[in-house]
Amino acid sequence: HLPRAVLSTTRRALQATPDELFAPADTFARRHIGVTEKEQAAMLTGLGYETMEGLISATVPAVIRRQPMKTVKPQSESEALADLRTLLSQNKIFRSHIGAGYYGTKTPPVILRNILENPGWYTPYTPYQAEISQGRLEMLLNFQTMIQDLTGMAIANCSLLDEATAAAEAMNLCFNSSTKKGQNVFYVSSDVHPQTIAVVRTRARPIGVTVRVVHHSKFELDAGDACGVLVQYPATNGTVDDFTALSKKVHEVGSKLVVASDLLALTILKPPGEFGADVVVGSAQRFGVPMGYGGPHAAFFAAKEEHKRKMPGRIIGVSRDNRGNPALRMAMQTREQHIRRDKATSNICTAQALLANTAVAYAIYHGPNGLKEIGNKVHGVATVFAEGAKQFEGVEVKSQDFFDTIHLHFKVEKAAEQVIKAARKRQINLRYIDEQNVYVSFDETNATEEAVNDLFQVLAEVTGLPVSSPAREVAKSNVKLPIIPTLARTTPFMTHPVFNSYHSETAMLRYLYFLQSKDLSLQTAMIPLGSCTMKLNATSEMIPVTWPECGALHPFVPKGQAEGYLSMMTTLEAQLADITGFHAVSLQPNSGAQGEYAGLMVIDAYQRHRGEPDRKVCLIPTSAHGTNPASASMMGMTVVVVACDEKGNIAFEDLKKKVLMHKEKLSCLMITYPSTHGVFEEAVKDVIQLVHDNGGQVYMDGANLNAQVGLCSPGGMGADVCHLNLHKTFCIPHGGGGPGMGPIGVAKHLADFLPGHPYDPRNKDSELATGAVSAAPFSSASILPISYMYLRMMGDSGLTKATEVAILNANYMLKKLKVAYPVLYTGKSGTCAHEFILDIRPFKAKSGIVEEDIAKRLQDFNFHAPTMSFPVPGTLMVEPTESEPLAELDRFCEAMLIIREEIREIEDGRADRKDNVLKNAPHTHQEVVSDSWKHPYPREKAAYPVRYLRTNKFWPTVGRLDNVYGDRNLICSCPPLETYENLS
Amino acid sequence: HLPRAVLSTTRRALQATPDELFAPADTFARRHIGVTEKEQAAMLTGLGYETMEGLISATVPAVIRRQPMKTVKPQSESEALADLRTLLSQNKIFRSHIGAGYYGTKTPPVILRNILENPGWYTPYTPYQAEISQGRLEMLLNFQTMIQDLTGMAIANCSLLDEATAAAEAMNLCFNSSTKKGQNVFYVSSDVHPQTIAVVRTRARPIGVTVRVVHHSKFELDAGDACGVLVQYPATNGTVDDFTALSKKVHEVGSKLVVASDLLALTILKPPGEFGADVVVGSAQRFGVPMGYGGPHAAFFAAKEEHKRKMPGRIIGVSRDNRGNPALRMAMQTREQHIRRDKATSNICTAQALLANTAVAYAIYHGPNGLKEIGNKVHGVATVFAEGAKQFEGVEVKSQDFFDTIHLHFKVEKAAEQVIKAARKRQINLRYIDEQNVYVSFDETNATEEAVNDLFQVLAEVTGLPVSSPAREVAKSNVKLPIIPTLARTTPFMTHPVFNSYHSETAMLRYLYFLQSKDLSLQTAMIPLGSCTMKLNATSEMIPVTWPECGALHPFVPKGQAEGYLSMMTTLEAQLADITGFHAVSLQPNSGAQGEYAGLMVIDAYQRHRGEPDRKVCLIPTSAHGTNPASASMMGMTVVVVACDEKGNIAFEDLKKKVLMHKEKLSCLMITYPSTHGVFEEAVKDVIQLVHDNGGQVYMDGANLNAQVGLCSPGGMGADVCHLNLHKTFCIPHGGGGPGMGPIGVAKHLADFLPGHPYDPRNKDSELATGAVSAAPFSSASILPISYMYLRMMGDSGLTKATEVAILNANYMLKKLKVAYPVLYTGKSGTCAHEFILDIRPFKAKSGIVEEDIAKRLQDFNFHAPTMSFPVPGTLMVEPTESEPLAELDRFCEAMLIIREEIREIEDGRADRKDNVLKNAPHTHQEVVSDSWKHPYPREKAAYPVRYLRTNKFWPTVGRLDNVYGDRNLICSCPPLETYENLS
Repeated sequence: HLPRAVLSTTRRALQATPDELFAPADTFARRHIGVTEKEQAAMLTGLGYETMEGLISATVPAVIRRQPMKTVKPQSESEALADLRTLLSQNKIFRSHIGAGYYGTKTPPVILRNILENPGWYTPYTPYQAEISQGRLEMLLNFQTMIQDLTGMAIANCSLLDEATAAAEAMNLCFNSSTKKGQNVFYVSSDVHPQTIAVVRTRARPIGVTVRVVHHSKFELDAGDACGVLVQYPATNGTVDDFTALSKKVHEVGSKLVVASDLLALTILKPPGEFGADVVVGSAQRFGVPMGYGGPHAAFFAAKEEHKRKMPGRIIGVSRDNRGNPALRMAMQTREQHIRRDKATSNICTAQALLANTAVAYAIYHGPNGLKEIGNKVHGVATVFAEGAKQFEGVEVKSQDFFDTIHLHFKVEKAAEQVIKAARKRQINLRYIDEQNVYVSFDETNATEEAVNDLFQVLAEVTGLPVSSPAREVAKSNVKLPIIPTLARTTPFMTHPVFNSYHSETAMLRYLYFLQSKDLSLQTAMIPLGSCTMKLNATSEMIPVTWPECGALHPFVPKGQAEGYLSMMTTLEAQLADITGFHAVSLQPNSGAQGEYAGLMVIDAYQRHRGEPDRKVCLIPTSAHGTNPASASMMGMTVVVVACDEKGNIAFEDLKKKVLMHKEKLSCLMITYPSTHGVFEEAVKDVIQLVHDNGGQVYMDGANLNAQVGLCSPGGMGADVCHLNLHKTFCIPHGGGGPGMGPIGVAKHLADFLPGHPYDPRNKDSELATGAVSAAPFSSASILPISYMYLRMMGDSGLTKATEVAILNANYMLKKLKVAYPVLYTGKSGTCAHEFILDIRPFKAKSGIVEEDIAKRLQDFNFHAPTMSFPVPGTLMVEPTESEPLAELDRFCEAMLIIREEIREIEDGRADRKDNVLKNAPHTHQEVVSDSWKHPYPREKAAYPVRYLRTNKFWPTVGRLDNVYGDRNLICSCPPLETYENLS
Repeated sequence: HLPRAVLSTTRRALQATPDELFAPADTFARRHIGVTEKEQAAMLTGLGYETMEGLISATVPAVIRRQPMKTVKPQSESEALADLRTLLSQNKIFRSHIGAGYYGTKTPPVILRNILENPGWYTPYTPYQAEISQGRLEMLLNFQTMIQDLTGMAIANCSLLDEATAAAEAMNLCFNSSTKKGQNVFYVSSDVHPQTIAVVRTRARPIGVTVRVVHHSKFELDAGDACGVLVQYPATNGTVDDFTALSKKVHEVGSKLVVASDLLALTILKPPGEFGADVVVGSAQRFGVPMGYGGPHAAFFAAKEEHKRKMPGRIIGVSRDNRGNPALRMAMQTREQHIRRDKATSNICTAQALLANTAVAYAIYHGPNGLKEIGNKVHGVATVFAEGAKQFEGVEVKSQDFFDTIHLHFKVEKAAEQVIKAARKRQINLRYIDEQNVYVSFDETNATEEAVNDLFQVLAEVTGLPVSSPAREVAKSNVKLPIIPTLARTTPFMTHPVFNSYHSETAMLRYLYFLQSKDLSLQTAMIPLGSCTMKLNATSEMIPVTWPECGALHPFVPKGQAEGYLSMMTTLEAQLADITGFHAVSLQPNSGAQGEYAGLMVIDAYQRHRGEPDRKVCLIPTSAHGTNPASASMMGMTVVVVACDEKGNIAFEDLKKKVLMHKEKLSCLMITYPSTHGVFEEAVKDVIQLVHDNGGQVYMDGANLNAQVGLCSPGGMGADVCHLNLHKTFCIPHGGGGPGMGPIGVAKHLADFLPGHPYDPRNKDSELATGAVSAAPFSSASILPISYMYLRMMGDSGLTKATEVAILNANYMLKKLKVAYPVLYTGKSGTCAHEFILDIRPFKAKSGIVEEDIAKRLQDFNFHAPTMSFPVPGTLMVEPTESEPLAELDRFCEAMLIIREEIREIEDGRADRKDNVLKNAPHTHQEVVSDSWKHPYPREKAAYPVRYLRTNKFWPTVGRLDNVYGDRNLICSCPPLETYENLS
């Protein structure tokens, strides 16, 4: 053998310290951050900084820089996944008969894999850019059509956050459209789900609505003070009541009927539209969406035609494109930019698109007949259980007319507790009501012979009697169904071909892929939105979401069955508290806007608690997201607007003036930081101090937290509350328009006021707790692992680095683009935070080009547009995030610079002012392939403004949307196929 | 309350029998079969049959109809998944230090989800239609480049089945290219992996090669009889030897050097190309592909430039398209149609594309530096273990020069057994060699401090000594690495930009999606191949494949750790035996061609066993797949061709003549049934009888089993052996060109001769067992759950129905198409089996149109072409399968009928003979958007021959491949980026 020595190429491993040698190779931060260390160094040099710290200290005011976060050692991807699986395996998955709005369901595997586990469906943004979003727009239109059909209503939106908030929104609608004075009572049946009642109560108080909860047979409508009534159909105890008479009465007294209902029940029950409901709400969860310990699920909201302009949330409408071909878009959208600020009646801008799409895909796959079969089966098995339960003496079956839920009454005191206990021993959960009453719900997963027999065993054990008639015997005896014949469904539903064509897996797979292919998602290109942080949604973060340990848990299981979840959430809350510099965090709000609402509610409760109930003035700068004033308005606050100076900062003198003017009534100031103008305002601490000095609290909108993490914190600056958009800074994907998550963090003096919940397993509720804001205690619990994994894999060092790179990337692009476009605001060193605004207004006079033309032209380059006209009309706001590769930043800048030259062609008269590549953008292949091309510019210029597009082209599937036509011809359900027959 | 009664709409549930009521709703057969019962009835009527049985009995000869299969109650999707998970959880996942060619690896989640779990990657066919396959062609070219770089060889193919068969193929190459007479010895080092030696032995005997296994220091090359030598680098015991001198010697005596190697080792070791290897083989498994109890994995085969025309398997080459743009294609492909029949030196046509793509994606994601880091880490930790193991008296570390595997020798007798036992107690597997020797391998997953310390604990326990220096202490002491400096890698590798650009998850995700989008898969459209059954690969079937229970098992674990797998396989074997009508099944062959080889080997062994070793004549009809004669040739048989009559049937008289002529030497007849002409031959039983009567055996090619299942069976007809393409009839996806699986079934008298394996845990080997044909006892075990799930979910009734519908669909299309195209063969009732052949030859004279033009034009309609020119040149063979929806069958027929009209335009002189939509097909968007369109037909006619294409267009990404150019300019690695700079 030859002599041996250490190899040069292996020297590194050998000279490594033990820590280096034993460090895992699959570290995450370098996968999450799109530019390498080497690239970062070069970018910094290009910007004139020697180090990252140089850039950061030039950008972030020294006075707000934070102490280091608590050390969290980053875990590798495989470690973090293994640890989380171990943690979540502490959850105990029992068979759930709890019901109450949450049911076991079988997600068809083709839908699980190709929607819920597919970045093509989970990474797109809300479909504001309709031309590159026709796939999910079609699916959401299908959702609306399904809801309209099943509820029997004229119009439906494309989802809301949860059934409880949908009911609260219905109450809003009733109250806001009441015509008579003094109609400020909202009657709620005591048979409505408890969590719905809780949220309705929360939302009623600030707007001056009185909620009266009594059985619906006891509504006192003749008093004439009811703006509306809410009933549940079928009720929470299972009963199916005929509301025809109630409906008549409600309308006689000039009030409105809101029905909370269940989609599966509606496959066999008369739809509420047929007995006169004004609004129907509910959850689409049991159509294939896992319970997930509470969510996310798609709630629905359907209404009579006459209410369509008052509908909350988003509605997809059918319009046409610039060639006259059918094209879909969001009609009557409300979003942060468009929301009617303090005139708004709702602050809702998040929907649950991913879950709505899953639910309607489930319906499409089963078709109307398949759904009806499942409905019949669930009802049939519930009937067998109800009949069979009668064999046990001492057990009274109270249910007479029901769909899937049976009310058992026990003659012996405390028998209910024994039943619950005996069931749990068998890993079965029932719904405990009180010492003598239990509800038992059936669903697609537990409508089985085994489940019924297990329940009989439970009853046998408690009553001490044998099971004389097992399920099969009972079923043989040909039970008569105790349902009211007048409530049988006679109207067909889901008759459109889309619901009757894709019942084989091959057909379904192709339809899903066909839709997916139409949509630009993060797997195609960067989505450089200034209003939303579109960073990587890493696979390791997404994998746990569809684990059964995560999905199969009912939100109301006892604490002992959710230890995995609770432990994960405790860790997550602590890390988020550290990041925000706050004392406590509530995970209950399930969207950013919900977070704002909850935060203001906490502030209001605090002000009331300290004896200053009149503090109702909320100061909001002009630059704020539209949801801020909307949320304040929903909290019954008076919005006072504060001006911004020419640099985009809050005009301190104006603020001071207004603070002092409203000193006695000042509740709070809402600010976004860094500002929506993309700047770290130097004066923020002075601003906060001023408000505090005058008895106000400071709410910090967390939309821009991606520029703060590790560098500064809302709490550190002195703010009292903030919300966190987990779907921005903390990697929950946008799902093509939801889900989102908006937890709030609060300072110590506010912690006791955080929202409570009737089913909170941690009993954290202090007496001071404010009301529930979401249907489930932790709302969309099943997506929390995404943020949890992100924090675990990044560690504190990785998180800080991500923030730094987000700021670096923005400044890198700013420098490249400012030679061509005026940049609206920068900080004192000429740097921006993590985003910046390009001013498009100067181009209009000479070229006629406006920001929309650039946004649409970017589609021809395979890009999603930046945020348009927010916060300043006529501008584009760009936020690259830390996840984008350098090559992609360069490609985007290249596109923008080429577009600037295209504008110049118009300015110089080389291109036509009306008929040019910008005004006609985006160009579909139909357009550029057309035999009748008549534009003055060549086809290739339209389609391939840069070379890479020749081999990597993402085609918009429709031309520019005709919004005027859509507004004039509001169509919100699937159009007949003939619509597509005459394409031009 | 109103009176109650049974509801009409719910009547069905209520009047249901208990069986119906309690039946699960998520049944599978209706999801797998694409046409509904109602549609089937209409289709049958259209064909003139009242019932399905009418069609079937008109089509399948009564004399071969089978008895019903054993009853297998179909399980619902959720039941089958839950049951299989329970079953597979019986597998025990220990930490594996076994090595021997199989290593733990971390599949990066972004690759797991977006390749292995993505139908866009796993459902495409082999990329014969290059224009709609550029995505995976690029990835496979990346694979070749990676292999060339790491091995230091001039050329590499795009994967082979496993390392052992790759070594056997290398032996073939050596033997077939030996220049001197009498060079029929193949030396194999005793340090080669045992399973490789076993397969090489199996493959050597029939072709007349003598294998001599001795330590490579004892090769007797001066005798001049060596056609080649095989060594392992690093060796199976871990040793890294310098083969420079051996290489010199080998070449001096006119022989060839084959090196089996390891990709991870080659990141830090001198590549075999640099010391003169002729061929380098190995497995790419540890680059991110789960061990999966043996496979599937991608083996590689790299060679010197001079051997390129003798390479087995597929090679991707760079060519150009009809516009001169760079375009990839399979160069020098061998496949069933193109394989050189009995002149072939290899029958290989399956590759492991999906796994090769996974492996190279892993390499792209890590990049050369990342791979080197992992290599160094594994080596560094192995070094720490080796040093630390010396602290235990009685333990001798035999390894001096090693990469990842340490050889421990124990001075005390039987100590090795105690060590193995003590390790198992800690859920650790080591490689047992004999009573005093154990090997310990390290990999990416177990190169950890914990693993080393656990091993020290094992040694401490056995030696009775304490651990005085734990891993960290050893690592601190700055161990010197005992590797030969002359073997350090100095050459850079993977320098191409593709390996240095996608290291963030965002960048990787986009690159994967970019490639995926270029390829037509089953999620886009039907792939109506006559030579391959492209049916649904259902998600429920695919889900188990990526469960850890399935993936994390080493193939050589003791039986007790693989109970889940073994139990599943026993059930699967029994069901396959029932389906084929055979006595026993071997799951070892990992492709159809491997199955053929194994089947013929069994027949040959049988003939020899009964004392007739001279029976070497194999009769094969002209219509056979090319692999049949190739396999026979590899078994050392003499192929005698039997004619077919004008109806496509075997010419019985010719057969009789040849049977009698070769009566004494007749080994067997190989037939495909139904024939490759798509016909159920009436005389099959007579044919079989004739062969049997004359001492021959009958091998039935299982390629067309999709037309038999449940209706007839190979065994029932009297055949003796058949193989089953699990990737055709039994739903394993094609993976874009592999994996496949080719188990064989045999009659009782042949069962003892089924292939054995040195690591077969069931010790089924009879003394009569033939040799191993695959590296692992169950070859690609981890994809068997796919077929298992299919059988469980379909049940016997569903399987039979699937066959019937496959036949119905084919006849439905035949009827629609025969008005426009001559159909070549049908059975006596005018019906076809599950496929049919359209004759394109008649069009040539009048229009110049050949089958390729139609195939390429179909791409303009979003379709993959049917099989071209097999088994008859100038034809197209169409097989729809049972999974296609009726709408898709109709769409395909519509396309074919339009194409017929387009041909007529040429015939009539309305279109140009050279410059027409067919000759120029497929049309890329670059072409139809071009500013210089000069074709005589309009662009829209090129791009949108039917209307649905305007809104649902799949664009081929390159124009028609220039094969002549590619053949003349063979480039088989990634071209420099500049190649793409001048696109026209």
